[in-house]
Amino acid sequence: MAESREWLVQWLRDAHAMEEQAETMLSGQLSRIDSYPELSERIRSHLEETKEQARRLKACLDSLDEGSSMLKDAGGTLTATAQSISGVFAGDEVMKGSLASYTFEHMEIASYTILIAAANAVGEAEIAHVCEQNLHEEEAMAEWLKSNLPQVTEQFLARADADSDSAKR
Amino acid sequence: MAESREWLVQWLRDAHAMEEQAETMLSGQLSRIDSYPELSERIRSHLEETKEQARRLKACLDSLDEGSSMLKDAGGTLTATAQSISGVFAGDEVMKGSLASYTFEHMEIASYTILIAAANAVGEAEIAHVCEQNLHEEEAMAEWLKSNLPQVTEQFLARADADSDSAKR
Repeated sequence: MAESREWLVQWLRDAHAMEEQAETMLSGQLSRIDSYPELSERIRSHLEETKEQARRLKACLDSLDEGSSMLKDAGGTLTATAQSISGVFAGDEVMKGSLASYTFEHMEIASYTILIAAANAVGEAEIAHVCEQNLHEEEAMAEWLKSNLPQVTEQFLARADADSDSAKR
Repeated sequence: MAESREWLVQWLRDAHAMEEQAETMLSGQLSRIDSYPELSERIRSHLEETKEQARRLKACLDSLDEGSSMLKDAGGTLTATAQSISGVFAGDEVMKGSLASYTFEHMEIASYTILIAAANAVGEAEIAHVCEQNLHEEEAMAEWLKSNLPQVTEQFLARADADSDSAKR
């Protein structure tokens, strides 16, 4: 049992680091997609959700007496992957950005799916509940991004044909 | 129109490189999850699908006269991201592997969603059709991984409590 609990704490820390990375990524993306107002608006609202999700995870860690002083230890391969996915934005291009956002959302979805199972396995119903909240927000964002992707692609290509420079923003 | 077509070719090349990376990742994962037979079996069958998907993409590129001699040019940030996600396996741990597979599947799903829109935009119905085939296979794999994730988590934690060494394989 003790070992399961340590994994739960580790995965909560990973998820907290992941949400902080998401915040950085979404903020960066927002500054580059002025030409795509619907996408901007949805990302702006998800940025607020993301900040709240990080706060919720912090509260879960506090409730397990594994609070903020431990958060700096989070990371490792998952954080490196999160950074790599968000680094796709360096290309400054709406298509790669949309692809990276959608991919990142699913890393979050998988993380919360694992966390819910882990929290239930060690009898932490409240933590499972918090992770379900975060999961539903990530699923809604992912669903929106997917349904928006064909339209963004068409806009991007129409602009590419009209003006190869402006399309990438 | 010419510019749109160049993007379609570029994205097809990216997708081909991505499927080759998927093949490497799935083969690597297969060698490390003997203790999870259902997961092994599903990954083995998806590995065959992945090889076929790469062949289909190659045929699309050939049909656009952008065949194998061009494939070496593929890559850039998307391939780097694919490598990073698959690099999560270096930890040799079934949970991070499952998380990475699920994440990787969605990079593929986003790529094919973009490719279908792009192929339709430039009037390449047959390429759109091929990408839809690949998309459906990726979606089925992603769905399976998600539904399997709670069970793998529970197995992992049960083994972690029983034997902290063997659980990670």
